[in-house]
Amino acid sequence: MKIVQDTIHGTIKLEEWQLEIIDTAAFQRLRRIKQLGFANLVYPGANHTRFEHSLGAMHLARKLVEDEEVVAAALLHDIGHTPFSHSGEKVIERYARRRHEDVKGIIKENFEEILDKYGIDVKKVVKKIKESPVSGDIDVDRMDYLVRDSYYTGVAYGVFDVQRLIEKMYFDGKRLVIEEGGIRAAESMLVSRFMMYSAVYYHHVCRIAKKMFEKALVWMIENDMLSIEELQKMDDYDVVALMRRSERFPKFVIQSLDRRDLFKRAVYVSLDKVGVNLKKVKPWRAEQIIAEECGIDENFVIVDIPEERSEEYGALVEMEGEVRRLDEVSKIVQTLKSLQSELLKFGVYTKKEYVDKVQKAAYDIFNIEKTRQKKLF
Amino acid sequence: MKIVQDTIHGTIKLEEWQLEIIDTAAFQRLRRIKQLGFANLVYPGANHTRFEHSLGAMHLARKLVEDEEVVAAALLHDIGHTPFSHSGEKVIERYARRRHEDVKGIIKENFEEILDKYGIDVKKVVKKIKESPVSGDIDVDRMDYLVRDSYYTGVAYGVFDVQRLIEKMYFDGKRLVIEEGGIRAAESMLVSRFMMYSAVYYHHVCRIAKKMFEKALVWMIENDMLSIEELQKMDDYDVVALMRRSERFPKFVIQSLDRRDLFKRAVYVSLDKVGVNLKKVKPWRAEQIIAEECGIDENFVIVDIPEERSEEYGALVEMEGEVRRLDEVSKIVQTLKSLQSELLKFGVYTKKEYVDKVQKAAYDIFNIEKTRQKKLF
Amino acid sequence: MKIVQDTIHGTIKLEEWQLEIIDTAAFQRLRRIKQLGFANLVYPGANHTRFEHSLGAMHLARKLVEDEEVVAAALLHDIGHTPFSHSGEKVIERYARRRHEDVKGIIKENFEEILDKYGIDVKKVVKKIKESPVSGDIDVDRMDYLVRDSYYTGVAYGVFDVQRLIEKMYFDGKRLVIEEGGIRAAESMLVSRFMMYSAVYYHHVCRIAKKMFEKALVWMIENDMLSIEELQKMDDYDVVALMRRSERFPKFVIQSLDRRDLFKRAVYVSLDKVGVNLKKVKPWRAEQIIAEECGIDENFVIVDIPEERSEEYGALVEMEGEVRRLDEVSKIVQTLKSLQSELLKFGVYTKKEYVDKVQKAAYDIFNIEKTRQKKLF
Amino acid sequence: MKIVQDTIHGTIKLEEWQLEIIDTAAFQRLRRIKQLGFANLVYPGANHTRFEHSLGAMHLARKLVEDEEVVAAALLHDIGHTPFSHSGEKVIERYARRRHEDVKGIIKENFEEILDKYGIDVKKVVKKIKESPVSGDIDVDRMDYLVRDSYYTGVAYGVFDVQRLIEKMYFDGKRLVIEEGGIRAAESMLVSRFMMYSAVYYHHVCRIAKKMFEKALVWMIENDMLSIEELQKMDDYDVVALMRRSERFPKFVIQSLDRRDLFKRAVYVSLDKVGVNLKKVKPWRAEQIIAEECGIDENFVIVDIPEERSEEYGALVEMEGEVRRLDEVSKIVQTLKSLQSELLKFGVYTKKEYVDKVQKAAYDIFNIEKTRQKKLF
Repeated sequence: MKIVQDTIHGTIKLEEWQLEIIDTAAFQRLRRIKQLGFANLVYPGANHTRFEHSLGAMHLARKLVEDEEVVAAALLHDIGHTPFSHSGEKVIERYARRRHEDVKGIIKENFEEILDKYGIDVKKVVKKIKESPVSGDIDVDRMDYLVRDSYYTGVAYGVFDVQRLIEKMYFDGKRLVIEEGGIRAAESMLVSRFMMYSAVYYHHVCRIAKKMFEKALVWMIENDMLSIEELQKMDDYDVVALMRRSERFPKFVIQSLDRRDLFKRAVYVSLDKVGVNLKKVKPWRAEQIIAEECGIDENFVIVDIPEERSEEYGALVEMEGEVRRLDEVSKIVQTLKSLQSELLKFGVYTKKEYVDKVQKAAYDIFNIEKTRQKKLF
Repeated sequence: MKIVQDTIHGTIKLEEWQLEIIDTAAFQRLRRIKQLGFANLVYPGANHTRFEHSLGAMHLARKLVEDEEVVAAALLHDIGHTPFSHSGEKVIERYARRRHEDVKGIIKENFEEILDKYGIDVKKVVKKIKESPVSGDIDVDRMDYLVRDSYYTGVAYGVFDVQRLIEKMYFDGKRLVIEEGGIRAAESMLVSRFMMYSAVYYHHVCRIAKKMFEKALVWMIENDMLSIEELQKMDDYDVVALMRRSERFPKFVIQSLDRRDLFKRAVYVSLDKVGVNLKKVKPWRAEQIIAEECGIDENFVIVDIPEERSEEYGALVEMEGEVRRLDEVSKIVQTLKSLQSELLKFGVYTKKEYVDKVQKAAYDIFNIEKTRQKKLF
Repeated sequence: MKIVQDTIHGTIKLEEWQLEIIDTAAFQRLRRIKQLGFANLVYPGANHTRFEHSLGAMHLARKLVEDEEVVAAALLHDIGHTPFSHSGEKVIERYARRRHEDVKGIIKENFEEILDKYGIDVKKVVKKIKESPVSGDIDVDRMDYLVRDSYYTGVAYGVFDVQRLIEKMYFDGKRLVIEEGGIRAAESMLVSRFMMYSAVYYHHVCRIAKKMFEKALVWMIENDMLSIEELQKMDDYDVVALMRRSERFPKFVIQSLDRRDLFKRAVYVSLDKVGVNLKKVKPWRAEQIIAEECGIDENFVIVDIPEERSEEYGALVEMEGEVRRLDEVSKIVQTLKSLQSELLKFGVYTKKEYVDKVQKAAYDIFNIEKTRQKKLF
Repeated sequence: MKIVQDTIHGTIKLEEWQLEIIDTAAFQRLRRIKQLGFANLVYPGANHTRFEHSLGAMHLARKLVEDEEVVAAALLHDIGHTPFSHSGEKVIERYARRRHEDVKGIIKENFEEILDKYGIDVKKVVKKIKESPVSGDIDVDRMDYLVRDSYYTGVAYGVFDVQRLIEKMYFDGKRLVIEEGGIRAAESMLVSRFMMYSAVYYHHVCRIAKKMFEKALVWMIENDMLSIEELQKMDDYDVVALMRRSERFPKFVIQSLDRRDLFKRAVYVSLDKVGVNLKKVKPWRAEQIIAEECGIDENFVIVDIPEERSEEYGALVEMEGEVRRLDEVSKIVQTLKSLQSELLKFGVYTKKEYVDKVQKAAYDIFNIEKTRQKKLF
């Protein structure tokens, strides 16, 4: 039995089979993938990685269940992440539509032998990744990353009492159920999540950096410098190296990121200020139109249409012997749900010198309400 | 210049005049008044006192203003507290209606000479206690106690970033104004306050203990064992000693508190379940009626009608050069405001053996909705 | 199963039998005995109690052993404490020589029935209080109080990694043994202890307050206001009440403590500066002599001869399959041991106005080296 | 005025000139240089960078002095660091002997213009880097990194009260002097440093990783793949990319590091067990001899001769109006000094399969005492 020192949970014990998985090259790659992508450009401490988060999620899973398939799923739930975390997701979705299938492939290729040896069913492990308590409205993934991201950004908003929440929860074999005494802690976690989205995950500088990086990835794929298959095996170092070696747009992007000299906001408004149906807009097409209108290179325009996440706030609660949805019994949660869309902003980003003309073009094209808006946080 | 080690703010520096005030017997009394009354019956760490809170509030005031009258007001804002903090407030209000006048008297009597010596105007100090930034929706009092109460209860809900909030605020001479960059931190503080009310301040055990203690105070006043003037000079030790020396109801109460063997809830429902207008009900009259109905001593019935606090959530925010109310620009704050009343519960408490009959009587008398309620947190 | 929120260990679970013990009046008394006596006169946050410390020690014991007698011993190890903690120890020792016998009596009287009911042997419990892992060089008592005292004083010195230390220790049925990987953590704990002694436990203001209080206790015992038996059943409130009701020296002392207007140091030197054999000196006799020499009331002189504690630093370590003493394998620990006596100071305290003459008398009587000493910390 | 959120110091304010320096490409490079090199192979959270440490050191400097040259020196003190921090130092020393000259060049080239604009003398800035309070026994560099490294490794040993220490220090224009009230905090810091050396900085896995990396750097320099000048402009990404692109030894090393499949210890003993004068041994020559003896490639043998650091523990203390050395007045510090050499180990590392034969050869060649040693921590 080995012990790893974790900044969030203290000491994390590793059993033999866990150690074998962690010692593979495929798992060690997670050490070199930043959990929060380019958030360190805003919060300089945010250099933590998928590696420690994966150990943390496993640690929490183990407190809730004894099922080794679930524990393994928690350990491996991020194994398919591309460099700089979420940044590559959209790109993969654009070029390959079978994200979860890929993860299945990666797990089989790298861990099936080890799991078999210890009598852990690889198929179940893959399946469990998408199920409670690894995934869901309140899950071990979120419970770990909220506190961890809060620790490394230094943003206290995200601090909630994980230990208390875990004590007041049970996994009934299918679902994670919060006991009545844990409702406040669960609400607290969802409030924290909301606050972290606003302060960190949707911080405009983080978003701009991420979108620039994504655009460079797309450029490299379309120019045959990179394939999706390669991307999924890379770590942060590989993709930075590739961009630095490149001559054109990717090189421009990596230099911008390295110097923290990023695109600026030409447009940044609430979704309800936008006069066109954004669901029908293809960002790359919109970028071309704006660029053409302004007479500039289309690489220098980014149209950022945030996805409306279907966070369901549907965690389950046991009250008076009955299991109900959290958003049914909690007004706080009902409110957070209704505020969800407020967090999202429609943005158009470009080089500093083009901000004015891109703004003008974008306001026209997207029919954005020009009256001075009453900002609503 | 002296330095005090504070658990929340690290080191707090004390200037000469502050040291002289702190060294008076009147101020030292605050060392022996628990900040959270009987909350330590639920949270065993909650033994902190008005003394350290007063230093903390002063420390925060000093970060916002240079006006010595304001700093003195922050230091002295709790000087009139009765033993076990808020527990005595209601009692005082019942027997003496001039609360703030009393504080003025205490300050003049004990600190005027010292303040004079340093050219600090005692009248202004008294006045500043009721004004921003010492009092208000977001004030140094709340900023200190929320984090402090959180630290000593071990309830993480209340943790918010005081330092960040203070950095993003300014006092314009009349009002405390939050800059745009501080809105999230302010929201976070108000969410914390809401959570702390639910987990700590309105925890039913804390409320029952407090109400029992208050009833004992009233008993002693009505039985000429105690006057309001005496009460305001006492510390926690004095009043406990008095109750232990007494023979009848106060002795029963102090023994109940000492053994943590308290009254139980016969009724505990949302205000909207109550079929009579609670604003017109005098609790002591209701207690007599219920007791009579049940054939028991009226001392063993407590009717707890919570006050609807007019927390205005009206902190001020500067956005785009304009100062506006926080609850106007923040949906989170609007929601908290609307949830305020949800926190309040109407309660009737009695000895364990009387719970059933008191419940029956109270349900009738208060016309409480009997259908199984859908609990809403 | 009930859960208590603890500031240090997070959530502490209570089993049925533990809950029954805690719910007795005898155990609840610990809620009203401050862990650090009068240390809050220096560190305003130090208001924590024997109650939470006892729960914490039990929590740690449970991590090391499954033996319920040991767990009960950890829970009850402080049950015999007199008001304001250690302050009464010396007094008891002076008047009653059978300290541990008393504890046995208290436990039998109050808890035997409960322990019996759950098949826990009360005799073994009493015995285990004096044995590892409840007592010893590194024990659950110390592990809890060092971190807890550090938390409430705000003195960071005492922070060491309890969790890591506990993970790297095992109880072999007789002794607590540290694994090789835990040596650094153990050293760290002993360094912390050393630092805490210096900053808190032996802080001169804490010592003076404690000694004044002890002298008042002795006065009350000798004037038949108080017996040892009574003292052991009292809490902080009782003894303060008694002192406030008294007319003479105890009243003077409680007023001094309440106003933080304490005796001052007339002498405060390292033990090696003292020219007489302190082991042969009876403090009360010395106080009389000094008082007579100065023509003042002997109550106003306190002679403080610190005990040389036989902290053995003899914790056990397993290295390369062999169990050895920590102070044999660790130079840090050897050093701390040799520094132990440096911490101790010989002090004579008196009223401010008598400092000069008391100093003169004491320097003569104790033959204290007058050359300007090279202070050695 | 901009604010950066720091995990250690809370909020750090940046003035205009500081912002301009930070926004240069040369300074932004520090974002991509890990503070603790490969320590994240042992402590997964240790991914923090020279960037945040530099801001932290500046923040502390500003609390001690108003001299802008000193503040700038604190901000720029690490500007010359090579990738993965200290790892490159030895290599540079081997090939270029003018380390500080290089730093001077870097600062002039990148920051002279900015500093000039704000009337800050670049020459003084360069000079101040090597002087108190930026360098020295207790300096802002150490005060920041000890707490920061502790935070990110999750090793609590290093936690000491920076705030208290800073409050109890002053800079007299030439030297940093600790007031008497700060001696304990200073001792605590030196103890922390000692503990961190043992648990983190000299952890054998960290050392092996570092030595393997250094050997790869040397290999690349000798094979004309890399120059010292290039190395000083690179970040972690550059050097990893270079090693991954290489075909031979550097590729082997980066793969070992990526997979956490490192050399093992063939020899690891206290310096006093070694029978030859290590000061006269050139590691690379010793590696050749051992390799030859064993018939293996010399790249697979690493001889690690630790430098005896001349940490002087000579911080200054003001006691009774006189300034003296800390190690003169503190026994704790005297002890730490004498223990310094205990921390150092002589090591020989090699591939797992060669451990036995390399051990045999090295024991002969270095005449290492074979009697079972009494381990001394």
